[in-house]
Amino acid sequence: MNQDYIKPDNWSIIEEDFDPGRVKSSESLFSIGNGAMGQRANFEEHYSGPSFQGSYIGGVFYPDKTKVGWWKNGYPEYFAKVLNAPNWIGINVFIDGEALDLFTCKSVNNFKRELNMKEGYLARTFEATLPNGTEIEVKALRFLSIVDDELGAIKYEVTPLNKDAKISFEPYLDGGITNTDANWEERFWKTHEVKNEDDKGFIVSKTLKTEFHVGTYMQSEIFLNAEKQELKPEVKEDEDSIAFSYAVNASKGQTAVIIKYAGYVTDMNHEQSDLVVAASAVLKNALDKGFDVLKNEQKDAWAAIWEMADITISGDVKAQQGIRFNIFQLNQTYLGKDERLNIGPKGFTGEKYGGSTYWDTEAYCIPFYMATKDQKVARKLLSYRYNHLEKAQENAAKLGFSNGAALYPMVTMNGEESHNEWEITFEEIHRNGAMVYAIHNYVRYTGDFDYIPEKGLEVMIAIARFWHQRANFSKEKNKYVILGVTGPNEYENNVNNNWYTNYLAKWCIEYCVSMIDKVKDGYEDDYHRIMGLTSLNEGEIAKWMEVAEDMYFPRSEEHNVFLQQDGFLDKEIIPVSDLSSNHRPINQKWSWDRILRSCYIKQADVLQGFYFFEDHFSKEEMERHFDFYEPITVHESSLSPCVHSIQAAVLGRMEQAYQFYLRTSRLDLDDYNKEVEQGCHITSMAGTWMSIVEGFGGMRVQDGQLSFKPQIPEQWDAYSFKINFRDRILKVDVSSGKTNFLLEGEGSLEILVNDKLLEVHPNQAVSV
Amino acid sequence: MNQDYIKPDNWSIIEEDFDPGRVKSSESLFSIGNGAMGQRANFEEHYSGPSFQGSYIGGVFYPDKTKVGWWKNGYPEYFAKVLNAPNWIGINVFIDGEALDLFTCKSVNNFKRELNMKEGYLARTFEATLPNGTEIEVKALRFLSIVDDELGAIKYEVTPLNKDAKISFEPYLDGGITNTDANWEERFWKTHEVKNEDDKGFIVSKTLKTEFHVGTYMQSEIFLNAEKQELKPEVKEDEDSIAFSYAVNASKGQTAVIIKYAGYVTDMNHEQSDLVVAASAVLKNALDKGFDVLKNEQKDAWAAIWEMADITISGDVKAQQGIRFNIFQLNQTYLGKDERLNIGPKGFTGEKYGGSTYWDTEAYCIPFYMATKDQKVARKLLSYRYNHLEKAQENAAKLGFSNGAALYPMVTMNGEESHNEWEITFEEIHRNGAMVYAIHNYVRYTGDFDYIPEKGLEVMIAIARFWHQRANFSKEKNKYVILGVTGPNEYENNVNNNWYTNYLAKWCIEYCVSMIDKVKDGYEDDYHRIMGLTSLNEGEIAKWMEVAEDMYFPRSEEHNVFLQQDGFLDKEIIPVSDLSSNHRPINQKWSWDRILRSCYIKQADVLQGFYFFEDHFSKEEMERHFDFYEPITVHESSLSPCVHSIQAAVLGRMEQAYQFYLRTSRLDLDDYNKEVEQGCHITSMAGTWMSIVEGFGGMRVQDGQLSFKPQIPEQWDAYSFKINFRDRILKVDVSSGKTNFLLEGEGSLEILVNDKLLEVHPNQAVSV
Repeated sequence: MNQDYIKPDNWSIIEEDFDPGRVKSSESLFSIGNGAMGQRANFEEHYSGPSFQGSYIGGVFYPDKTKVGWWKNGYPEYFAKVLNAPNWIGINVFIDGEALDLFTCKSVNNFKRELNMKEGYLARTFEATLPNGTEIEVKALRFLSIVDDELGAIKYEVTPLNKDAKISFEPYLDGGITNTDANWEERFWKTHEVKNEDDKGFIVSKTLKTEFHVGTYMQSEIFLNAEKQELKPEVKEDEDSIAFSYAVNASKGQTAVIIKYAGYVTDMNHEQSDLVVAASAVLKNALDKGFDVLKNEQKDAWAAIWEMADITISGDVKAQQGIRFNIFQLNQTYLGKDERLNIGPKGFTGEKYGGSTYWDTEAYCIPFYMATKDQKVARKLLSYRYNHLEKAQENAAKLGFSNGAALYPMVTMNGEESHNEWEITFEEIHRNGAMVYAIHNYVRYTGDFDYIPEKGLEVMIAIARFWHQRANFSKEKNKYVILGVTGPNEYENNVNNNWYTNYLAKWCIEYCVSMIDKVKDGYEDDYHRIMGLTSLNEGEIAKWMEVAEDMYFPRSEEHNVFLQQDGFLDKEIIPVSDLSSNHRPINQKWSWDRILRSCYIKQADVLQGFYFFEDHFSKEEMERHFDFYEPITVHESSLSPCVHSIQAAVLGRMEQAYQFYLRTSRLDLDDYNKEVEQGCHITSMAGTWMSIVEGFGGMRVQDGQLSFKPQIPEQWDAYSFKINFRDRILKVDVSSGKTNFLLEGEGSLEILVNDKLLEVHPNQAVSV
Repeated sequence: MNQDYIKPDNWSIIEEDFDPGRVKSSESLFSIGNGAMGQRANFEEHYSGPSFQGSYIGGVFYPDKTKVGWWKNGYPEYFAKVLNAPNWIGINVFIDGEALDLFTCKSVNNFKRELNMKEGYLARTFEATLPNGTEIEVKALRFLSIVDDELGAIKYEVTPLNKDAKISFEPYLDGGITNTDANWEERFWKTHEVKNEDDKGFIVSKTLKTEFHVGTYMQSEIFLNAEKQELKPEVKEDEDSIAFSYAVNASKGQTAVIIKYAGYVTDMNHEQSDLVVAASAVLKNALDKGFDVLKNEQKDAWAAIWEMADITISGDVKAQQGIRFNIFQLNQTYLGKDERLNIGPKGFTGEKYGGSTYWDTEAYCIPFYMATKDQKVARKLLSYRYNHLEKAQENAAKLGFSNGAALYPMVTMNGEESHNEWEITFEEIHRNGAMVYAIHNYVRYTGDFDYIPEKGLEVMIAIARFWHQRANFSKEKNKYVILGVTGPNEYENNVNNNWYTNYLAKWCIEYCVSMIDKVKDGYEDDYHRIMGLTSLNEGEIAKWMEVAEDMYFPRSEEHNVFLQQDGFLDKEIIPVSDLSSNHRPINQKWSWDRILRSCYIKQADVLQGFYFFEDHFSKEEMERHFDFYEPITVHESSLSPCVHSIQAAVLGRMEQAYQFYLRTSRLDLDDYNKEVEQGCHITSMAGTWMSIVEGFGGMRVQDGQLSFKPQIPEQWDAYSFKINFRDRILKVDVSSGKTNFLLEGEGSLEILVNDKLLEVHPNQAVSV
């Protein structure tokens, strides 16, 4: 844990006291989003201290020219950057002509920020003494509507405390923004039009190269106490920005209020020529309803999300706050409405990593969305990859693969590869396996086998072809080997026979072949369509199977474990516990060659395979591998603790499972990796959910049967979660020694609890 | 071979006919230099076609900000770039007011370029018809004086052929130049002062960041036919440049001539404040002597170089031209006068690679300079590394090594690491071994053992410490291993137990320990000084020796060869001869992962070790390894063919040795690697010399004894070379079936010829 200023609270993230040194961290942690857009928790008023401004629109990206020291054939020319979009939250505030700026105030008291996760808003209050001596109280509250996802609303209140004062509000839109993460310090946006109609302001901008057109808009209302002021604003326009200026004379104790409605409309959803019209319609609707109605709608919409997705934990506020923060951020990032979007590793909280889609979605996020939303949402996430199949095939062709083999990109926004480190881009090919695993996981959980003939099988065939070509026969080993890869543990590069990769490759081929057989049996038309489309024949399948059946797996007889890769035991194996804390995190303290030569594992690698294919191995095998690998794992990837938490739970090591749970659930709140300023780790938050539901709750699905093996950390009194299993809603309440199941809807459901069959009848709680 | 427009000639590089598509290639091939400065063969007059302007000053560099996609701890912040310096060759030429520009002339006839290697100048003649119809003949000749290495001189003659014409010459200096190779498109120079004194022009510039101060200067004389014209030039100055304009009315057939004296003086050799004074002194001296005298001095100076360094080949003009081109370029690049300079991989012919010093110097260049110059020159090259020892220690410390361990940089200009690909910078550590090998090679050849106690041993101790720390004990193998390295074959990255690296590491330790013993015996004062300085004790040495004695070497019992690295035989071994030519060069045709996974070797790796330590292995072992590795070697490094040529000669495979010789000696002239536009491969040219002297001539030194095993390719009638062996000059003439030895000076010399003792008496030719 590297910070602990966030106040424990069941439903809110709370910061008290103003500390400029924490501003960037808090900007990440207090981020808000609505699945379509999102933003860091920058202040509305001008702030001259260190800050990282960010406002992002889902799907809108810039193909930044690749930056590398030495070019390698096969690198993508462009890197899809998450784009800082025009700023619409800005409200300059002047008190008797002096700008309010928390960085320069004489004093700031009773500062409080609250991210209210239950109702979906960000609030801030403080009292400040300006350099000119005026004391004011400020309350600011804003939200991004998840009901109308093009709309944001801000209520900003100023009360002079020690004298009468002239309060000027200057709400503005600014299109002249830059990216913190830019390779060449180029501008990413061009402003087309700056325009005002009465008290409505518009900026129409387009992204360079990608030519996304975005309309940013605003309209404000001014009140003195509760009384609306009919003011004609002064308008200031320049090339990239527009501001309206409103002045109100407030007596001491009176409150001047501005409500600003603003947001984005884009040509992903409207005609380019209609952006101003579309924005006007959003504004009209917003002003008709008014701030309070909109805020209530927001509350209700979040209530509906929480109704399904909430996990409660009794007796451990920090754990409760952690899981809700995770669930809240996941929902802010992706609501499953738009097939073109995905779950960026930083969501709408920062720019690092670029692109929006990593194998994180398939390996970590799918289970969360499958169980807490309609199963169509997970299907959309799978279809996203299906829609990118052609680009994955082009990508593989660029690297020298043929016959329609596909290599999905390491990072992407539109299906094209965006990453350009050779050891990742070209070698971290296990990601291809996650695509297939996600299909398998989806079909296993939802029973929606139709997805396979409809879309999944084409993806699986292209990936089987990749693995077949990527392996080669080693005369030395008399087996097929996969050389030159990087596994999930990115602290090893260009290794031979990464066990996880080899295992996934073999499994992908076998699973694909078994699915071809199933489609052949039950979906004859699809079978012929797909075989025709792919020119696949039995001879080719036989060649794949040869690779799968004769795959090599590195193994240590001495330790009786699979080895992470060839030669792993040539390393000095020194447990992390023997490593002085001033060497950690090693990715900040050590040179890269030292990391590579060391035995230390960034994130679960062999254990990731045991997580995916738990049913392929005995518990004893899992235990042996856990005991071999966990002690040399530094968990410097956000994706590591959750897998270990689940496996520790399986192994009945609840204290260890709980520690891993805390680490995954409060990774950002407590800033374990000393980098939360750059944004939150969104995708690993789905891993936190898994560590409760699959870890403590022990939920599994096998052969269409839902099963649980509930356990509870001794720190907790009780916890509960809800899942949507094949359109049935099941609530699970676990307390020490007892688990309650409550099924919604009609018809009973047979589940396994601790390997025993249990019939659950609708609306009748049953305890075990 | 990818081009063949260079005319075969014993002493010159000749191009005929003007082809704009070849301009950039020829700019590289016709480069001139004098060890202190050098330049690409850009035209003096304006040229609007594709061209790559380059003029370079030895030791003057710019620390360009590192460009990488993802930063790794331990990367250098800056990359020392070879700097394009102010242009002083420029002479704009106007014929009746129309600019001469070969790219826009109506016709260009009888174009000829000649790089006269015997006399050390570059000449160009052509006839051109300008757009305005005037026909002219031009002769241009220039050289960089190796007598006064701050001076260059150009004679530029224009004769109107079809009418009288006003010929205007506009000699200029231009400080507003940029680098072709720049990471951030920044300017590298700032102009301080632009100044004229009568007909002398000066620009004083400084490099940004490094603050090298350079004075660029010029003065011109104008003639009509042979008659000097006393003209007062019109002066044009701007911020970065200065030009003088001279006009002469030439009747049809009369020749207008400009002689321009120009060059650089730098604060490496003068006070910053004296640069204009220093330049004036150079000019005065030049004008006093005049062009013809200077040109004669140049001829004589080159004659002295050739007297010692020339290799003659009879019966094969292309082979003769190749070796002389190589010897000429090496001498143009480095003459051994300045301890601060080194042999850049592109010399003064281009900017690629940056930095000036690679392990090429130690592994390839030292033998050439030892044998063709005073042995002080090789000592200077060794001292260069001794002077950088502290920086090599800092570099190792940055990567986590301790106790004064040193890692010499992969690329450097001033001792600091300049390279920033992790797989090279951090992993291509075999370079450290080359530092020690060069000391060994030097002492073996020159007998100058004093270098060891004086400087060498400190370097060796720091390097032994590096190897000791870099190896680790593998319990699995019960041996010391070296993990995560890149060998000389850069088509493998991050491999374990690269045989060459392990072998060098072991040898470095053993050699260092043996040298400590020798110093202890014969140089007691030095011994105590060094042991004190390094805090070295017997206990530490014992630990080193444990690593050396227990080093692991990968080996295939089946093939009875050492393996390039662990797991090499997991690859599919397909000979290069089976690889379709449209896949080559693979570094241009294949993605990086495909290259890494393939068995193909960029340059000698195991065989490089056999070259260094030929006496450690039997001929049968060498043959077996050659036959195993050469067929899978693509020789896409310029440093590969020479080693193979030498070993093919040892194995008596003269036809193969000859083919490799052609490839190394004419690599640039015939543009084997399709990249000569970027500059010539200077360091590998020393390998060409080795392939004759050590390959065909079979020269070796063992225990102070010089030996030869002369052979001759059947394509040649005879060849000869001269060596300086311990201040004795021996000329060796080889023809079919006979070798002549002729010793200069006093006292006889005992040598081995084909393993038989031969006493050579001075000035008496002896034949074998």
